[in-house]
Amino acid sequence: MGLLHETKAPGGAWSLLAAGLAEFFCTAAFLFIATGTVTSGCHTADTARQSGATDQELETVEPGACFLGSTNLLNIAMAFGLSIFVLVYAAASFSGGHLNPAITIAMFLTSRVSLVRAAVYIICQLAGAIVGSALVRAADPNGFKAALGAANRLNTWANVGTGLGVELILTAIFVFIVFAAVDKKRGAHSAHMPVLAPLAIGIVVFLCHLVAVPIDGCSVNPARSFGTAVVARTWAHHWIFWVGPIVGGAAAGLLYEALAYRAPLFGGPVE
Amino acid sequence: MGLLHETKAPGGAWSLLAAGLAEFFCTAAFLFIATGTVTSGCHTADTARQSGATDQELETVEPGACFLGSTNLLNIAMAFGLSIFVLVYAAASFSGGHLNPAITIAMFLTSRVSLVRAAVYIICQLAGAIVGSALVRAADPNGFKAALGAANRLNTWANVGTGLGVELILTAIFVFIVFAAVDKKRGAHSAHMPVLAPLAIGIVVFLCHLVAVPIDGCSVNPARSFGTAVVARTWAHHWIFWVGPIVGGAAAGLLYEALAYRAPLFGGPVE
Amino acid sequence: MGLLHETKAPGGAWSLLAAGLAEFFCTAAFLFIATGTVTSGCHTADTARQSGATDQELETVEPGACFLGSTNLLNIAMAFGLSIFVLVYAAASFSGGHLNPAITIAMFLTSRVSLVRAAVYIICQLAGAIVGSALVRAADPNGFKAALGAANRLNTWANVGTGLGVELILTAIFVFIVFAAVDKKRGAHSAHMPVLAPLAIGIVVFLCHLVAVPIDGCSVNPARSFGTAVVARTWAHHWIFWVGPIVGGAAAGLLYEALAYRAPLFGGPVE
Amino acid sequence: MGLLHETKAPGGAWSLLAAGLAEFFCTAAFLFIATGTVTSGCHTADTARQSGATDQELETVEPGACFLGSTNLLNIAMAFGLSIFVLVYAAASFSGGHLNPAITIAMFLTSRVSLVRAAVYIICQLAGAIVGSALVRAADPNGFKAALGAANRLNTWANVGTGLGVELILTAIFVFIVFAAVDKKRGAHSAHMPVLAPLAIGIVVFLCHLVAVPIDGCSVNPARSFGTAVVARTWAHHWIFWVGPIVGGAAAGLLYEALAYRAPLFGGPVE
Repeated sequence: MGLLHETKAPGGAWSLLAAGLAEFFCTAAFLFIATGTVTSGCHTADTARQSGATDQELETVEPGACFLGSTNLLNIAMAFGLSIFVLVYAAASFSGGHLNPAITIAMFLTSRVSLVRAAVYIICQLAGAIVGSALVRAADPNGFKAALGAANRLNTWANVGTGLGVELILTAIFVFIVFAAVDKKRGAHSAHMPVLAPLAIGIVVFLCHLVAVPIDGCSVNPARSFGTAVVARTWAHHWIFWVGPIVGGAAAGLLYEALAYRAPLFGGPVE
Repeated sequence: MGLLHETKAPGGAWSLLAAGLAEFFCTAAFLFIATGTVTSGCHTADTARQSGATDQELETVEPGACFLGSTNLLNIAMAFGLSIFVLVYAAASFSGGHLNPAITIAMFLTSRVSLVRAAVYIICQLAGAIVGSALVRAADPNGFKAALGAANRLNTWANVGTGLGVELILTAIFVFIVFAAVDKKRGAHSAHMPVLAPLAIGIVVFLCHLVAVPIDGCSVNPARSFGTAVVARTWAHHWIFWVGPIVGGAAAGLLYEALAYRAPLFGGPVE
Repeated sequence: MGLLHETKAPGGAWSLLAAGLAEFFCTAAFLFIATGTVTSGCHTADTARQSGATDQELETVEPGACFLGSTNLLNIAMAFGLSIFVLVYAAASFSGGHLNPAITIAMFLTSRVSLVRAAVYIICQLAGAIVGSALVRAADPNGFKAALGAANRLNTWANVGTGLGVELILTAIFVFIVFAAVDKKRGAHSAHMPVLAPLAIGIVVFLCHLVAVPIDGCSVNPARSFGTAVVARTWAHHWIFWVGPIVGGAAAGLLYEALAYRAPLFGGPVE
Repeated sequence: MGLLHETKAPGGAWSLLAAGLAEFFCTAAFLFIATGTVTSGCHTADTARQSGATDQELETVEPGACFLGSTNLLNIAMAFGLSIFVLVYAAASFSGGHLNPAITIAMFLTSRVSLVRAAVYIICQLAGAIVGSALVRAADPNGFKAALGAANRLNTWANVGTGLGVELILTAIFVFIVFAAVDKKRGAHSAHMPVLAPLAIGIVVFLCHLVAVPIDGCSVNPARSFGTAVVARTWAHHWIFWVGPIVGGAAAGLLYEALAYRAPLFGGPVE
């Protein structure tokens, strides 16, 4: 699809408006649920004690003191991954359910969406992410402070190369799953592909978080990183969360288009 | 559907009776499983010790002493969300599987159910919730006391604005997913929508609980809050758990009807 | 189907043999995975320390010393529920995937299987459960001792009425989900019902365990309780795990047949 | 299919190349996500403290000091099982999504893939596993050291017979689920089988890990064990992770072919 396609198509402007609204509201809902789970989780009794708070109010703790243990890691990964599942489930028929500039850019580079549509989506995603994060801070300022707003940052043990490499590889895997999920040729011969598409997409986001939350909080989504950085005013190493996901996602998208999209079908699952 | 539709339609009374019974039994089962997981979880060894009990009998602990850690938070969120999944899965063909006055009211305001049907559903949901909660107290009086019957209440660190705002936003997201799941126009063009509908609905309830259990125990369902309040005799801030979910759900339902229902289709997932 | 149906039908004997073998092998696999998760989990570092073992070998701990915390509760519930999901997924086309005498009896009482088939299934389920539990003991005798073989028993805080009531109610909910899942009339009008059937059945088993593991280890399946009781030689209150599930399951099955099976259809999920 | 089939079929060489690439990339992604979750999990605060590290950098801990508790056990099992779900979901239409020599050998022995194809797959799986594990070490050398690269090894309490027996039984159950999932005759009469196939396969891998991670880290996949052994240079008892999965998988595959494949259909789930 070319640049003009969107604006010339009958109903194109209305379709684009509906899609942009869906991207805005669903990215805001994504940030509210996912980063809200991080901040409210700081008030659970075990986490609050580990952070040095004498109660669960967290008024006395240092910024960023919220404890990351193996348990709330699982809760956090589930909140990010499964909110992508339900929001892609619902938003797919409005906008395709990108909710992520790295996905939108990979889709644009492979001619799946026009430049105008890509630009509208990314602006709506970034605005939605800021709104979602601001609502979390308004609802729970102490938890927000203790968790630094769930903003992405490199943990002390990780260096720039680690963060960049992990974001790049994980987003490449993520985009591979997304491109397979929307591959109509393959989906037409494989009963599981269209039906489970939003679940597979949500679960791969869950898996990225299981791996990368202890490293850099896990981005794989520049809008998510941007929204929390704006609201928490935390910009250290912020470029990593744009360059890693966009480069990894674009590379996987272009590789899929060049190789996988034309590859012959093999049959059903595990045949 | 108008008010008269239900009573004039052939078989309408019998259909309404079957639907009301389904709402009653399934809401009772929902409370039994979900709040029963909260109360029986107070007897696990780690939770009991944290509560100050010398054994797992909990006979000596203060009312409300049951510990909320990041681990049982996950168990609780799963119990609420996944019981909604299986009960909506089974009840959908009897009553639509509302199990929640906030859903029924949003459905009524958008003419998806009649006033008579809405009233019958809500009465059956409230009665079912009381029965489910009473069975939990009968089975495990000490766990019930330690957990205050899993009744909703604002945690000490949260104020009225936080509780009301979070209930309103989460129920709005919940109702958006439900309305998308039952949107026949979109479902006809999207293989994943009708098949995964009860799973998406259950998972969004799970996500609401991940966010809001540390804040106010998470309602998003006035029947669930009413049932436990009646049995545990805990009415502090109870109005929040009616106003928040009903206003948030109604707003999302009316917005969906006005904007989203008429929006053009975009295609398959993430296309 | 009457008593003679199975033996007179063409290929009936061969079909019954295949079905019995499937029930035998899959019930053995169920016990191996589910109770094996309980016993091997006693060797994790946190659990072993809580049990008083100085290392993870558990050679020095008392029988039954294995710690039940809120974390391994979740692992255990997942092992029971999700192994039912995958085994029903695979066994459904061989035998229907009962793997549980309470299901088979409810199916027999509502004329879904013949008396001969019900008897063959139950014998195969009981034999399979013994084999699965014996393999767990052979692989991990110390973990088996520490966990008392994952046999069902009333925890100290629970009395007979609690155990019996909880088993009865949970199995009734379980059988309601199973009967809805195999209700062909409803399934024909509801895209989600046939596709998600084994997942809904597995998840309701998971939920029963979340509620009842802290109470009595959770049975809802006399074969599972019988297999571990035989191998662990633990028979205290064993009758509860037959009477509760069978009475609860039979009541739910007969009620479904009398009321729900004939109830009018309402439409898709949550309509 | 015979040996010559692959090379003579039109497009056979191109199909085989695409399939081999899919097996290579997806096995690398599997190791990166699954063993990366093990190593990065060693940096969470609770795990790091238990390992004796004064901070989360893990520079001072002994090789292999990473703590296995009941919580990170769940995270690990989910990472292995759910990455198999999403990768089989996407790779099925390229190669069948084996990602495991034990599956490929069972498929070859039952004439589901040719000798040439089996050899190409296994070489690609082994190479992919090495690449995936090497990327984990490059990204997180301290976590890799603390977890011994997530290599399989017998825990101190387990002997060779236990490890071999558990790997054999679990892989047999795993292959039974896989063979049922790709059984076209059964799938044609059972709506849930083709749609849920990759989910059932991923969940059975999750269950194998719940049982066997405390025993030997869980293999059920020689490529996964080989990749980590090469990169971590840990070869103790390595043969177990080839012999157990291959013998168990082959036995289950041949038994399925001899008995189950020809068994009559029983109907829908749990009928």
